[in-house]
Amino acid sequence: MALPPNAPLPLVEPVARLIEAFNQLPSIGPKTASRLTFFLLRADAEVAQQLAAALTDLKEQVRLCKRCFNITVDELCPICTNPSRDQSMICVVEEPLDLLAIERTGAYRGLYHVLHGHIAPLDGIYREQLKIDDLIQRVRTEPITEVILATNPNTEGEATAYLILKDLVPMGVRTTRLARGLPTGGDLEWADSDTLGSALEGRREL
Amino acid sequence: MALPPNAPLPLVEPVARLIEAFNQLPSIGPKTASRLTFFLLRADAEVAQQLAAALTDLKEQVRLCKRCFNITVDELCPICTNPSRDQSMICVVEEPLDLLAIERTGAYRGLYHVLHGHIAPLDGIYREQLKIDDLIQRVRTEPITEVILATNPNTEGEATAYLILKDLVPMGVRTTRLARGLPTGGDLEWADSDTLGSALEGRREL
Repeated sequence: MALPPNAPLPLVEPVARLIEAFNQLPSIGPKTASRLTFFLLRADAEVAQQLAAALTDLKEQVRLCKRCFNITVDELCPICTNPSRDQSMICVVEEPLDLLAIERTGAYRGLYHVLHGHIAPLDGIYREQLKIDDLIQRVRTEPITEVILATNPNTEGEATAYLILKDLVPMGVRTTRLARGLPTGGDLEWADSDTLGSALEGRREL
Repeated sequence: MALPPNAPLPLVEPVARLIEAFNQLPSIGPKTASRLTFFLLRADAEVAQQLAAALTDLKEQVRLCKRCFNITVDELCPICTNPSRDQSMICVVEEPLDLLAIERTGAYRGLYHVLHGHIAPLDGIYREQLKIDDLIQRVRTEPITEVILATNPNTEGEATAYLILKDLVPMGVRTTRLARGLPTGGDLEWADSDTLGSALEGRREL
């Protein structure tokens, strides 16, 4: 008598479409997608409008910094244009969220370089898809004395770090890695500020 | 040295605004809001566009059925305009999601009436904010022989059901309540189809 539990609901089209759109986002399943949609149906029109406008602006206004590939609205990001940042250090991270996690510790005052991923040959992500050549170019042309390889402390992050290290060794620049106060196999973005701060201070020569 | 854990991140404005907009939704905290935003930054522009369009359409196209207050795009909802539905029964629910949960059981072929909430004097929700008078009017003018009070099996839902019952008793219409196969204190929307189906079949006279 009952429909199968995953049968399509008798929903009007705009509602079904929003549930579907939410459901495409990571960590949002069909139940949460319904909840969000019906919350928005009840909420002031403003709430949905603000979210829609923010989504549109995100893709229209946000781009990558020409120098470090952090997210920005201008040609260069706020960190690259800040003269009080130490211009002799680059901290290399996989994602913009990792950069934010390090900024939150308050323990680092240098520059960044965002790779936008890690080496993962099984997923078809090779050196060319990452911003590694741009990093090498920066170390060559900017007055850099230290590169901190702050890729994630897991297999892909380590592989990415050692790939970059191979290029940096002949250039004679000091290259460090975050101290393994970080739990192996973990995700940098979720580390608490203290752990991440000590990892920064205890970084070791490669 | 570290910033407090909830210090604002050094984010560019459109990114911060989208995180904030996601964070206003129920069950999405600041961490998930960041994750969703950075997922959208990396994803094809289409994903964000579809979500933005779906949000705009939701508020522009969706309205409440004039008769039963279910959500709809036309004047009347698909259930009210379906001639094969039993026009002599009304199932009264708190929210459109509850209606969908009952539809999913396949055990009910009558009409609905959506109250859009439950009595909650402490939250300032009184009889007037709910579609109770509209229900009484329907029972008076339509050929209704049974009203199923399918409000949630918790304090507010029971209070709402008994308030409606008081009005229905003098009208002589058969009034039933879903069998308490449903767990007390639970939420109708999360019940599985079988439990909800048996509750429908075992509904008892009030």
